[in-house]
Amino acid sequence: MRPRSLLLPLLSFLALARIAAAQITTVADSSPDAAKTLRQFHTEALARGQAFDHLRTLVTRFPGRLSGSKNLAGAIDWAEQTLGSLNLDRVYRQDVKVPHWERGAKESVMMVHAAGAEPLNALALGGSVPSPEGGVLAEVIEVKSLDDVITLGHAKIAGKIVFFNRPMDPAPIRPGLAYTGAGDQRSRGPSLAGKYGAVGALTRSLTHARDDFPHTGNTTYAPDNPKIPAAALPTLAADRLSAALAASKRSADGKEGATVRVALTINSRWLPDAPAHNVIGEIRGTEFPDEIILVGGHLDSWDVAPGAHDNGSGVVQSMEVLRLFRVLGLKPRHTLRCVLFTNEENGLRGSATYVSAMREKQEKHLLAIETDSGGFQPRGFNLGSTQGDAHERAAAKWRALFEPYGITTFIKGTGGADVGALLALGVTVGGLTPDSQRYFDHHHTTIDSLDKVNPRELHLGAAALASLIWLVDTQGL
Amino acid sequence: MRPRSLLLPLLSFLALARIAAAQITTVADSSPDAAKTLRQFHTEALARGQAFDHLRTLVTRFPGRLSGSKNLAGAIDWAEQTLGSLNLDRVYRQDVKVPHWERGAKESVMMVHAAGAEPLNALALGGSVPSPEGGVLAEVIEVKSLDDVITLGHAKIAGKIVFFNRPMDPAPIRPGLAYTGAGDQRSRGPSLAGKYGAVGALTRSLTHARDDFPHTGNTTYAPDNPKIPAAALPTLAADRLSAALAASKRSADGKEGATVRVALTINSRWLPDAPAHNVIGEIRGTEFPDEIILVGGHLDSWDVAPGAHDNGSGVVQSMEVLRLFRVLGLKPRHTLRCVLFTNEENGLRGSATYVSAMREKQEKHLLAIETDSGGFQPRGFNLGSTQGDAHERAAAKWRALFEPYGITTFIKGTGGADVGALLALGVTVGGLTPDSQRYFDHHHTTIDSLDKVNPRELHLGAAALASLIWLVDTQGL
Repeated sequence: MRPRSLLLPLLSFLALARIAAAQITTVADSSPDAAKTLRQFHTEALARGQAFDHLRTLVTRFPGRLSGSKNLAGAIDWAEQTLGSLNLDRVYRQDVKVPHWERGAKESVMMVHAAGAEPLNALALGGSVPSPEGGVLAEVIEVKSLDDVITLGHAKIAGKIVFFNRPMDPAPIRPGLAYTGAGDQRSRGPSLAGKYGAVGALTRSLTHARDDFPHTGNTTYAPDNPKIPAAALPTLAADRLSAALAASKRSADGKEGATVRVALTINSRWLPDAPAHNVIGEIRGTEFPDEIILVGGHLDSWDVAPGAHDNGSGVVQSMEVLRLFRVLGLKPRHTLRCVLFTNEENGLRGSATYVSAMREKQEKHLLAIETDSGGFQPRGFNLGSTQGDAHERAAAKWRALFEPYGITTFIKGTGGADVGALLALGVTVGGLTPDSQRYFDHHHTTIDSLDKVNPRELHLGAAALASLIWLVDTQGL
Repeated sequence: MRPRSLLLPLLSFLALARIAAAQITTVADSSPDAAKTLRQFHTEALARGQAFDHLRTLVTRFPGRLSGSKNLAGAIDWAEQTLGSLNLDRVYRQDVKVPHWERGAKESVMMVHAAGAEPLNALALGGSVPSPEGGVLAEVIEVKSLDDVITLGHAKIAGKIVFFNRPMDPAPIRPGLAYTGAGDQRSRGPSLAGKYGAVGALTRSLTHARDDFPHTGNTTYAPDNPKIPAAALPTLAADRLSAALAASKRSADGKEGATVRVALTINSRWLPDAPAHNVIGEIRGTEFPDEIILVGGHLDSWDVAPGAHDNGSGVVQSMEVLRLFRVLGLKPRHTLRCVLFTNEENGLRGSATYVSAMREKQEKHLLAIETDSGGFQPRGFNLGSTQGDAHERAAAKWRALFEPYGITTFIKGTGGADVGALLALGVTVGGLTPDSQRYFDHHHTTIDSLDKVNPRELHLGAAALASLIWLVDTQGL
C-alpha cells in the first residue's frame, strides 16, 4: 500500500474519491448531541488517552499480580493512587480475603524415552498440589477427553500420568468457544484423573498458537478425589510428547526402552487466605446518586504473566472511562463507579465481596459492564438482563451511532466473570467484546506483555465503554 | 478471563447459556447452499490453511523484495513454483520492466547542536537521490506543511535542510485517512523543498506509533525541481530533533552553539530498468472461461522490509483463494485468476503491464479484487463500479451471510493501487478491508515481520475473499 503520487493523477483522483466517500458517515440516530458526544469520547481517547501509559506502569511495576502476592498489593496501592489523581468524588477500597497459592521453585517436566531424556517447557496449573518429594516418574497415557479417562478406567489409568491432549477446535470463528470447548481438560481433568488413580496430569495449553509457551490457568479438585499434581505443556511440547507416545506404540514389543515416561516436579504450596482489596472510584450522579453504573476489570493476573491484556487492559480502560467523563465535563445523572476487582483468576472473591456489600447496602445498579476480553479493537458488546433482551434494545437504539467506530455486534451475554453474578440480582450486565483472534495466543503466559497491546485499540475500547455508559445514563436502556 | 469451574455452578450455567446464544446464527439469505459454502471456506482455511506457512517461506527466504532486487527475482520464482503446486489449469509469468533504485550503504543522519552530535535512526526515502560526496551539513528548518515551505520562501529555505514534522492526525478512526492526510510531506515535500533551494529533506515517519523505527516509502521529484536527498526519521527521533530546534530558538542570542544542524548522508543510486514479472495462476471457468474474476496482491516490498503484511499477506491470501476452490472441489463458472503484481511500491509497472495486456487481448473482467491492506482480521470490502454502487448491491445481497464471520462493512472504494486502474475500464474492482489499527505501526519498516501476523486472521481474510468471489461467480454482482 502506498500514498498517492504526483505521477499518478488517475489513481490519486480515485483515492481522493474513495476517502471522500469514506468520510461521509450517516448517523441514523435523531440526536446530533449523541453523535457529537461519541465523537468527543473517541477523539479525546485517541488523541490524549492515558490508558496505555497507565498500562505501561501497571505491567512494568507489578507483573504477576496473583492473589496473595506482593505485586497484587502494589497494584492495589497504585490503582488507588491513580484513581485518586482523576479528580473523582470518592476513591476507596473494599477488603477481600483471597486464596493464596504459590508456584514455588520452577516446575520441571522431563520426557524420558528410548532416545533419552528431554526437558519440556511447562507451567504448573494454578491451584495444583505439589508433587511428592522428589517428583513423580510414571508412564504417560494420552487421552482426548474426560470421557476417555472414564472409559479407560482404573485399570489403565492407575499409577500413570494422564496427558489431556485434545486441541482447541480451529473451526469456530470466535476462539472463546474453542477455549471453553477444550477447557474441561484443564479445569476438571486432573481431578478426574486422580479419581481413577493417576499420579499426575499434563494438559495441552489452551491456545490455537503453535509455539513453546505454556499457558497456565486454574484447575479445581473435587473434594472427594485424590489431588494430583498437574501442569500445562505448550502446544509444540504436547505434539512432541504425543509423537513419542505414538512412536512407542508402534515399536511396542515389550522392550523396556519403548515406554515413554515423564518425570514431573511441582513445588507449589497453598497458604492461608490473604488480605487484598477491590479498588473503587466514583463520580457522583447529579440526579440519581443512589443508582449506579458500574464499569470494571480485574487487578489480579496469573503469577507468571505481566497481565497486559488479562486484565491490565480492563483496569486502565475502566479508569479511562471516568477520566473521559471528567475531562469532557460530562456530569453523569447516575453515579458512575469504576470497580477494579481482585482475585478474578482463582476465586472470584472480589466479585463475591462486592455483591455481598451491594446487597447489604441495597444498592441499585442500572448497568454493570466489564472489560475482561483483552485490549483489542472493540467490535461490540454483550448484554444480559432478566428483563428481556437488552442487547436487542441497545442495537435498535444505538447501532447506527456506533457504526462509524467499527462497533457492530450487540450479542446476548452475561457480562463477564466479575459482573455475571449481578445478573441474577436483576442488574443489566454487559461486557466489551473486542476482536478475539489474538487473545489466546498469550493468555495466561509470560508473553501477555505490553508489546501485544496497540494503544489505539486500547483507547478505542475505553471510548466505546464511555459511549455506551453515557447513552445508558442519558437515555436509559 | 477464565473458564468455568466446578465450584461456580451459577456462572457455569450463565456461561453455557451465553455460548448457546452465540452459536445460534441467523442467516437471512435464502440460500442454504451459500451459507454452507461460506462455512466450508472458513473451516478449511482455519483448520488447514496454507497461507501462513507460505508467508513464513516468502518473508524468511525473500525479505526486502524491492523492484530490481535479487530477492524479488527469488520471490517470483518461488511464487510460480508455489502456484504450480496448487493443481491449477495454468501458471505463467508476464514480463515487466521495473524501476531499479538501490539504497546502497546505510544512510546516516547526525544531529549537531550545542550539546554535541547525536545520531538519529533514519531511512532514505525510496527514490531519493544520493547526497553529494561527503554528505550535506546544514541548518534545519522545521515545517508542518508544504504550504509552510511556500510561505517561508527561498530566503528562509535556501541552503537548509527542511524537516517536515506534521504528525499523523490521531483522531480518524481509520488510520489510513491520517496516513493519506500526512503523506504529502513524504511524497511531494522533498521536491518542493528543493524548488526553494533546500539542500536536503527530513520527514517524520508516517505512523501513529511512538518508537524509534523509521518508515520509508516513495518520494517523487517534479521534473523541473532540483532533486535533493531525503530521509524519514522515526517519530521519537523527530520529536528529539523538534525539541532541540525549540530549545535552540529559546536560546537564540546569536551565539554559534545554539544552531541545530544535521549531517545527512545518503548513498542511493538509480540503475537502468530491470526485468521482473507478474506471476499468474488460473482455474479455468466451466461456463464462461473468457470472463475473469481476478484476485491479487503484490510481490514486491520495500528493500528494508520483510514485507509480511505489505504485502506478503496479500500474495499468500490470493494463492489460498485458489487452493480453497480446488480443495473443496468448487469449479468456478468464470475463470478465477490469481495475479501477483510486481512493482507496486515504486512504480505500479506490474499493474500497468497487466492492464496493457488485458486491453490488447480484449479480456473481460467480472471483478478484480485486491488484498493489500494487511493480513489482519477482515472487516469487509470496498467495492467500486462505473455501473452504480456495487458496495450497496453486495451489502443488500450478502451482508447477512458474512455477518457470522465478523464482516459487516461494505464501502465504496477503488479496490487498491494495483486494480484501481481497471475501474476506468469498466471493471468492478474491490479490496479486502481488514482491521487497520496496527497496519501503520510497521508499514515500510524492518519490523513488518512474520510475528506481526496472526495465522487465523490471515486465513480468515483468505476465506472472506474466497466467499465473495464464489458469490459473485455463482450469483453475479
